[in-house]
Amino acid sequence: MSNGIIVWLTGLSASGKSTIATAVAAELRSRQIPTVVLDGDVLRKTVSPELGFSHADRDENVRRVGGIAQVLAEQGLVVLVALISPYRGARDRVRAQAAHFIEVFINAPLNVCEARDPKGYYHLARSGQVRSFTGVSDDYEAPLSAEVECHTDLEDIETSVRRVLQAIERKLEAAGAQFG
Amino acid sequence: MSNGIIVWLTGLSASGKSTIATAVAAELRSRQIPTVVLDGDVLRKTVSPELGFSHADRDENVRRVGGIAQVLAEQGLVVLVALISPYRGARDRVRAQAAHFIEVFINAPLNVCEARDPKGYYHLARSGQVRSFTGVSDDYEAPLSAEVECHTDLEDIETSVRRVLQAIERKLEAAGAQFG
Repeated sequence: MSNGIIVWLTGLSASGKSTIATAVAAELRSRQIPTVVLDGDVLRKTVSPELGFSHADRDENVRRVGGIAQVLAEQGLVVLVALISPYRGARDRVRAQAAHFIEVFINAPLNVCEARDPKGYYHLARSGQVRSFTGVSDDYEAPLSAEVECHTDLEDIETSVRRVLQAIERKLEAAGAQFG
Repeated sequence: MSNGIIVWLTGLSASGKSTIATAVAAELRSRQIPTVVLDGDVLRKTVSPELGFSHADRDENVRRVGGIAQVLAEQGLVVLVALISPYRGARDRVRAQAAHFIEVFINAPLNVCEARDPKGYYHLARSGQVRSFTGVSDDYEAPLSAEVECHTDLEDIETSVRRVLQAIERKLEAAGAQFG
């Protein structure tokens, strides 16, 4: 019951976290490995609608998502978390609680993310209509020792997905999982 | 991706919610059906440590757990929620949001639950050391139209588990799930 893994994808808005998490999940499910995706945007709406984007509220959001991920991982699931989670301390607190944790730094330069801007958030942040926006008007503390780093401006999605999958496979082997 | 089900077990403390949820989950997993248990006691510690037991806090707790359950059910999981969830309104709001929802009333009389008292909570409630305790010093609003009702004082665990499983099987068939 404790063979699950938390795979924590952190990075700027529009860096590719949800895209990669969704593709990794599809591959794991095709291998009959029980998998869920916890998407930061979705959970803010459903679990934490009252939280804003102050440092304290962001940390609380990470704490809650981390708590959910832990409950699920303890039941054997691979839990893919796609969450900006900009502060190192909050991410490291989740790691410290987890039996098996993989941090994935989805690393694309700010100007690339801003050029993508699929939801128009960067535009709103630059024009001051959205405040405390990570990378523009709020800090992003990059991981210092992420297990995987995906430069989504330099490699295609398939390459990033494959590298995340390889890290999960290694961890599942080390965890002695019965999957696959 | 939307073939999951929320199975919501409501009832007094010590009525048998977690026991039945755990046994149902074990059976579903043995059938390769992706399943998770969301246990109220566990989630209060991990996700909602700041919430108390006022009506508003209880409703907020149910709302959060319901939100998590919904995210997971939308990814195809059977989500077994074991939560006192004493107020009808909060439970019905979760039901209204869910694509597939089974309410299971774990119904044992107060005096039976109090005699079990595995964690000593009833003793603490009667002696005033714990306040707002459901059934003793706080209301429990029984479901009016639960899909399953388990009289755990009159039937053994195996019988309750089988009846919950039958309700899940019917719902999975209706949902057109590919499991099993």
